[in-house]
Amino acid sequence: MRPEGRQNDELRKMTFEPNFIPHAEGSVLVSFGRTRVLCVASVEEKQPQHLTGTQKGWVTAEYGMLPRATQTRNKREAAKGQQTGRTVEIQRLIGRSLRASIDLDLLGPRTVTIDCDVLQADGGTRTASITGGFVALAMACRRLRSQGVIIQDPIKFPVAAISVGILDGQVRLDLEYEEDSRADVDMNVIGTAKGDLVEVQGTAEGHVFSRAQLNELLDMAFKGIREIAAAQVKAIG
Amino acid sequence: MRPEGRQNDELRKMTFEPNFIPHAEGSVLVSFGRTRVLCVASVEEKQPQHLTGTQKGWVTAEYGMLPRATQTRNKREAAKGQQTGRTVEIQRLIGRSLRASIDLDLLGPRTVTIDCDVLQADGGTRTASITGGFVALAMACRRLRSQGVIIQDPIKFPVAAISVGILDGQVRLDLEYEEDSRADVDMNVIGTAKGDLVEVQGTAEGHVFSRAQLNELLDMAFKGIREIAAAQVKAIG
Amino acid sequence: MRPEGRQNDELRKMTFEPNFIPHAEGSVLVSFGRTRVLCVASVEEKQPQHLTGTQKGWVTAEYGMLPRATQTRNKREAAKGQQTGRTVEIQRLIGRSLRASIDLDLLGPRTVTIDCDVLQADGGTRTASITGGFVALAMACRRLRSQGVIIQDPIKFPVAAISVGILDGQVRLDLEYEEDSRADVDMNVIGTAKGDLVEVQGTAEGHVFSRAQLNELLDMAFKGIREIAAAQVKAIG
Amino acid sequence: MRPEGRQNDELRKMTFEPNFIPHAEGSVLVSFGRTRVLCVASVEEKQPQHLTGTQKGWVTAEYGMLPRATQTRNKREAAKGQQTGRTVEIQRLIGRSLRASIDLDLLGPRTVTIDCDVLQADGGTRTASITGGFVALAMACRRLRSQGVIIQDPIKFPVAAISVGILDGQVRLDLEYEEDSRADVDMNVIGTAKGDLVEVQGTAEGHVFSRAQLNELLDMAFKGIREIAAAQVKAIG
Amino acid sequence: MRPEGRQNDELRKMTFEPNFIPHAEGSVLVSFGRTRVLCVASVEEKQPQHLTGTQKGWVTAEYGMLPRATQTRNKREAAKGQQTGRTVEIQRLIGRSLRASIDLDLLGPRTVTIDCDVLQADGGTRTASITGGFVALAMACRRLRSQGVIIQDPIKFPVAAISVGILDGQVRLDLEYEEDSRADVDMNVIGTAKGDLVEVQGTAEGHVFSRAQLNELLDMAFKGIREIAAAQVKAIG
Amino acid sequence: MRPEGRQNDELRKMTFEPNFIPHAEGSVLVSFGRTRVLCVASVEEKQPQHLTGTQKGWVTAEYGMLPRATQTRNKREAAKGQQTGRTVEIQRLIGRSLRASIDLDLLGPRTVTIDCDVLQADGGTRTASITGGFVALAMACRRLRSQGVIIQDPIKFPVAAISVGILDGQVRLDLEYEEDSRADVDMNVIGTAKGDLVEVQGTAEGHVFSRAQLNELLDMAFKGIREIAAAQVKAIG
Repeated sequence: MRPEGRQNDELRKMTFEPNFIPHAEGSVLVSFGRTRVLCVASVEEKQPQHLTGTQKGWVTAEYGMLPRATQTRNKREAAKGQQTGRTVEIQRLIGRSLRASIDLDLLGPRTVTIDCDVLQADGGTRTASITGGFVALAMACRRLRSQGVIIQDPIKFPVAAISVGILDGQVRLDLEYEEDSRADVDMNVIGTAKGDLVEVQGTAEGHVFSRAQLNELLDMAFKGIREIAAAQVKAIG
Repeated sequence: MRPEGRQNDELRKMTFEPNFIPHAEGSVLVSFGRTRVLCVASVEEKQPQHLTGTQKGWVTAEYGMLPRATQTRNKREAAKGQQTGRTVEIQRLIGRSLRASIDLDLLGPRTVTIDCDVLQADGGTRTASITGGFVALAMACRRLRSQGVIIQDPIKFPVAAISVGILDGQVRLDLEYEEDSRADVDMNVIGTAKGDLVEVQGTAEGHVFSRAQLNELLDMAFKGIREIAAAQVKAIG
Repeated sequence: MRPEGRQNDELRKMTFEPNFIPHAEGSVLVSFGRTRVLCVASVEEKQPQHLTGTQKGWVTAEYGMLPRATQTRNKREAAKGQQTGRTVEIQRLIGRSLRASIDLDLLGPRTVTIDCDVLQADGGTRTASITGGFVALAMACRRLRSQGVIIQDPIKFPVAAISVGILDGQVRLDLEYEEDSRADVDMNVIGTAKGDLVEVQGTAEGHVFSRAQLNELLDMAFKGIREIAAAQVKAIG
Repeated sequence: MRPEGRQNDELRKMTFEPNFIPHAEGSVLVSFGRTRVLCVASVEEKQPQHLTGTQKGWVTAEYGMLPRATQTRNKREAAKGQQTGRTVEIQRLIGRSLRASIDLDLLGPRTVTIDCDVLQADGGTRTASITGGFVALAMACRRLRSQGVIIQDPIKFPVAAISVGILDGQVRLDLEYEEDSRADVDMNVIGTAKGDLVEVQGTAEGHVFSRAQLNELLDMAFKGIREIAAAQVKAIG
Repeated sequence: MRPEGRQNDELRKMTFEPNFIPHAEGSVLVSFGRTRVLCVASVEEKQPQHLTGTQKGWVTAEYGMLPRATQTRNKREAAKGQQTGRTVEIQRLIGRSLRASIDLDLLGPRTVTIDCDVLQADGGTRTASITGGFVALAMACRRLRSQGVIIQDPIKFPVAAISVGILDGQVRLDLEYEEDSRADVDMNVIGTAKGDLVEVQGTAEGHVFSRAQLNELLDMAFKGIREIAAAQVKAIG
Repeated sequence: MRPEGRQNDELRKMTFEPNFIPHAEGSVLVSFGRTRVLCVASVEEKQPQHLTGTQKGWVTAEYGMLPRATQTRNKREAAKGQQTGRTVEIQRLIGRSLRASIDLDLLGPRTVTIDCDVLQADGGTRTASITGGFVALAMACRRLRSQGVIIQDPIKFPVAAISVGILDGQVRLDLEYEEDSRADVDMNVIGTAKGDLVEVQGTAEGHVFSRAQLNELLDMAFKGIREIAAAQVKAIG
C-alpha cells in the first residue's frame, strides 16, 4: 500500500492559489501533497542576446529551494556562492518545457522569467514547478493582453508535468519523496492533455528497464497529465 | 496623509500564520501590510566553532529575498554567486537581535538557524524578519521542551522590531516602501515591551538629526514595539 | 540527403584508440566522425562521503571541452571560474549511465573517476563520452583484476549511448552538429545491446512529439546501440 | 582603571599625518592609540549608474585590513576571494556617513572613493576610518577647487565618529580592543561638532540597555566628537 | 646515468603532429618523451582593450592540464572554480614568449589565442607549450596569408623553449619529471636559433647558483634550442 | 638623463623603517624612491600540509597593493573576489626567494608568512618586497631566538633583489615606473652579496637580447645587490 492509502494511478491532492504575489504579472502557489512551490512570472521588456534584432520573445526559468524546504536544513545556495548542478539542470528543464507551450513570435520582443521557489519539498518539485510555472506564464500573457501590450494570446496549449516510477515492481504515479528515494526507475514526463510529449527523462539508477515498462510508465503519466491540465485551466480561470 | 489613511503612529495590518512549514521546529509567515516574510527555525545538534568545548548554544540567521518580492524583479543571489552587502548586514542584525532574547546556556550545545525569506517586500523587511524570527525561535524552543531535549525555557523575553522615520517633517511609525524611500531619517529599533533597547540603528542619508528628534523617534518606536510584542505572544500561543 | 551521403539509420565512422594515456588505469580516444573525446579512468582508493562505512565503490564522471573543440573558440571554463549548466548536466548524466553498467559492491571501497574531455566537437559529445567512458571503465576494472585488487569483474554489461532525432520529418541516427541544431526532436538514448534502457532523454525544443514518434526514435536508437556495443567489446579486447 | 590610566571620558592619543600618499587627491594616516588607518581619497570623473544623466557627484568608501593588523594574522580577503560581511557592513557605513558631510550637487558629476586600509587594529577601526576619511575627502575637495575643477567648497561640516560603551557598569569613551571585547553595550556615534547625529548604531550583544543609558552614552560620545572635529579641522589646515 | 640512457645534453624524443584539430587555424600535438601538449591557435577579429584604436594585433595564451595528465589525478580547475597560480604564471609566460616571435603591426587588428592543453605531463610542459605554441601560431599566420587576410608574414623568427637544470652536480638538458623534482637549479630558457634570449627564468629552490653555472646552463640550453628550432621549421612545412 | 639626475648604475634613495608594526614578529616599511612597501612577518606554530610529519619549517609570502598605490586607482582585489595573475606570480617569487635565505630545518615546525603590502608604487615593487621581506624575516627569527623558541639562527645569508633593464640602448639599475614601462629588456635579479644567484627572471617583451647584454645586466644588478645587502644588515641591527 502507498502512503495515505493512495492508488497506484492516483495523484496527490493538488491545489493552486493563483495571485499569491499580487503585484507580479502572474503567480501561483501550487501544491501536490506536501510539496509546495511558489511560481512567479515576471515580464521584462528586454530580449536575451541571441534574439537581438528579431521580434521574438523568450521564456526562461529559475529554480530555488528554501533551506528548510526539506526535512533537514540544506545550506542556502546564495551563501554557498553557487547553484548546485541539480538546480541548474532543473531550471533548464523548466524553461525548455514552458517554451513548448508558447508562440515566441506572438509574445514579441520581451522576456518572461518564471521563478520557481520551493517552500516545502516532498518529491516532485521539478514537475510541480513546470505545472505551476505554466499557470503563472498563462496569467502573465493574459495580463499583457488586457494591457494591450500584445494582441493575440501566445499560449498554444497547457503543458503539464508529472513523475512516474517503478517501485517494488509496481508502476506508480506522482511519487512522494519516500517513494522516489526507493524507486528502481524514475521518470519525469512533460506533455499535453492530447497525449503528446514535450520532454521525457527516464532514469534507472543502477538498473535497466524495458521498452514495455517504458510504455506502462508513459500510459500512467498521461493519465495524470490529463487531470493536471484540467486543473491548470481551472486555476487560470 | 499617509497611504491608506494610516495615522502617523499606526502600524500596518499585522498578521502571523504560525506553523506555515509544519515539519520545521518553528515557522511563521508574518506580514506587515504588503510585506510578507517566511521565518523558519531549524534546530541542529551542533555548535559553531567558537563554542566548541562549552555547553552553550547559538542562534544565527540567514536572510533572502525572492527575486520578484519587489515591484521589479531582482537578480537571484544564488545565480549571481554572492550575497549582497545589504543581505549580509541584515542577517547579522537579525542574529544579534534574536540572541538578546535567549539564554544560550539554557539552550544547550545546539544551533538554531532562523531563515527569513521575503516573499513580498514593501518596506520593513528586516524588522518583520526579527519580529517573525522571534516567533519561530520561541516555537522551536517550546518544541525542544516538549521533546524533553531541554528542561527549562531559554527564552528571556520577546524581542520585537519596527522602523520609524522622519518624512515631510513628521515622525512616522512602520514606514512602507514608498515612505521609506523619501524619508530624511530612517531608524530601526529593536527592543522589548518594557521599553529597553536591544539595538538601535538610525541613519540620515545626506542629512543630520537632533537629539530631540531621536527621542521622538524612539518614543514612537516603543509604542509600536509594545503592540507587536503582544501580537507575538498571541501568535506563539 | 544527409551530409557525406549517410543513410538515416547509419552511424558515423566510429573509432577507438585504447590506451591513449598509458599511465592511466583505463583510457580511450573515441571518435564518431569529427567528434573526438578523450575518456580516461582514474582509480582512487577512497569513497565518496555517502558510502563511508560501507564496502561499496563509486563511479563518477567529469566532462570538459577544450576551448577550440568547436568551430569558433569558447571561453575556457577554468578561466571563467565556473562550469556551465550544460557541463554539469552532462557529467551527471555520464556518471549515472556508467553506474548502471557496474556492480558497485564488487568494485569495492574505491572510486573510479571518468574524465571525458572533448578535443573536437561535432554533435553527440555526451553520447560519445558515455560510450568511450564505458570502455575506459572496463579497462580500469580489468587492470584492477590483473593487479589482484579485485577478484571478480564488476562489469555487468556494456552501456552504449547514441543520439537520434527528427529532422525535416525524418528520423535520423547519430546527428552531427549541423543536423542537431536544426532538429525538431532530439533524443539521447543510453541502453544495452539486449534492448534495455538505462536512461532516455527526449526533448522537443518548441515542439511536441507523439508516442508513435517516440517508438520510431527508440527503434532506430537501439539499432545503433547494438553496433556500438559490439565495437566497445572489441576495443576493450 | 582603564588601560594606561585613561579617564572614562578621555580619548586615546590621536594623530593625523596628512599627505601620507602624496600623489593622491587627499590622504591621511590617522591613529587613535594603537589603531592606525590609512585613508586615501581618489577622484574619478565618472558617476555611479544611478546618477547617470544628473549633475550630481558621489562619495563611496572601501575598507580593508592588512592581514597582520591584528595580534594574530588573519587570512587576506583577496586570497579568500571574498570580503567578509563585517567588511561590507563597515564600508557601507563609512560611505553613508561621509555623504552627510558634503553637498553632492556642488561636487558635480564625479566620484570620490575613500579607501580606508587598517595598518594596525586595536578597536575603533570603523570610527577612525570615518574620522580620517573625512579629512581625506576635505583635502580632495580643496585640491579640486585649487585646480578650478569646482568653484565652491562642497563640504558642509566636519563629520567625526567615535565609539562608546558600557563596561563593568561604566560608560567609557573610545574603547580599545581589550575593552570592546568585554563591553555589555557598544555604540558607534557619527555626528557633528554642533551635537547633531549623522548615524547611531548601538548594540547590546546578549543584553538590553535603557533609554537613560542611551542618553549617557550619547552625551559622552559628543564630548569626544567635539574634540575630534577640532583636530580634523587642524589636520586639513 | 639518466633515465633511458640519455646523455646530459640530449633532448628527449620530440615529435610534432601538425593539424591535429583540422578546423582550427593552426594546431599541433607536440611531444617530448612522455610529455604531450595539444597546442591550438584561434584567430579572432577583435583586439584587446589596450589596443583599441590602433591597427596592432595581439597574441595571448591559455594553459590547462587534463586531470589525469599526471601520475595521480588532479582536481579539474574548472570544477575548483579557479586557475591555480602556477597555471596563470605559465600562460602569461607562453603569451609573452610568443609575442617576441611576431610583428604585431603586420598581424593587424586581430587576436591569436594559443590554447595549450597538456594531455600527458612528464616535466617540461611549459617549454613544450611554447615550442608547440609557436608552430600553431606560424600555421595560423600562413592560413591568414593564404586567405588574403594579411599580405606579409608577421613571423619574425622561430621561438623555442627548453628546460635545463643542475642535478647531482651535473648540468642536464630537457629534464623529465623525476629529474626536475630532484634538481638543485631549474631553468627555463626561451630563445632563438641564433642564440638570442627571449626570456630566462632560473631558480634555485633553497639554494644559490653562480654566474659560471648560469653560463654552463645557458650553453646547454642553446644547444637544445637550435635542434628544436630546426624541428619546428620542419613541422610547419 | 635619468629622472632626478640618477646615474645609470645608481639606486634610488633607499630607506628602512624597522618595527613599523610593533606587535608583529618582524616588520619594516621599505622604500626605494617613491616605491613604499610594508613587509610584515607573522610566525604561526603550524606547518603546510606537505611538511606534516617532519620537523621542517616553511616561509611563504603574500603580496597586495592598496588601490591608490598607483597614479590612478585600481579596483581592490578583495572586492573583485580574486587575486590577479600578476599578484599570484609575484607572491610565489617572493616566497621562493626568501626560502633560499633560511635553513628550514633550523626554523623548525612553524610557518613564517611575509605579507608585502604596497602603499605606494613607482616600479620595482616585487624586488622591494623581497628586500624588505628578508629584513622582516630576519627580525622574526631573532625574536624567536630571544624567546627561546629556536636555539640557532636559521638565516643563512641576506637575500636582496633589484631590477635592471635596457632602455634607449643603455643598461640601467633600479628602474622607476616611467623607465620600466619603456624598457626593451627588464630583468629582476635576486641574489647574495657574494655574487650568487637565487633567481633570475629576464624578459624582452617583443624583443630579444644577447648573452653579452645578459652579462652586462647581471654585473650591474650585483653592484646594486651588494649595496642593498649592506643596508639590510644595518636595518636588522
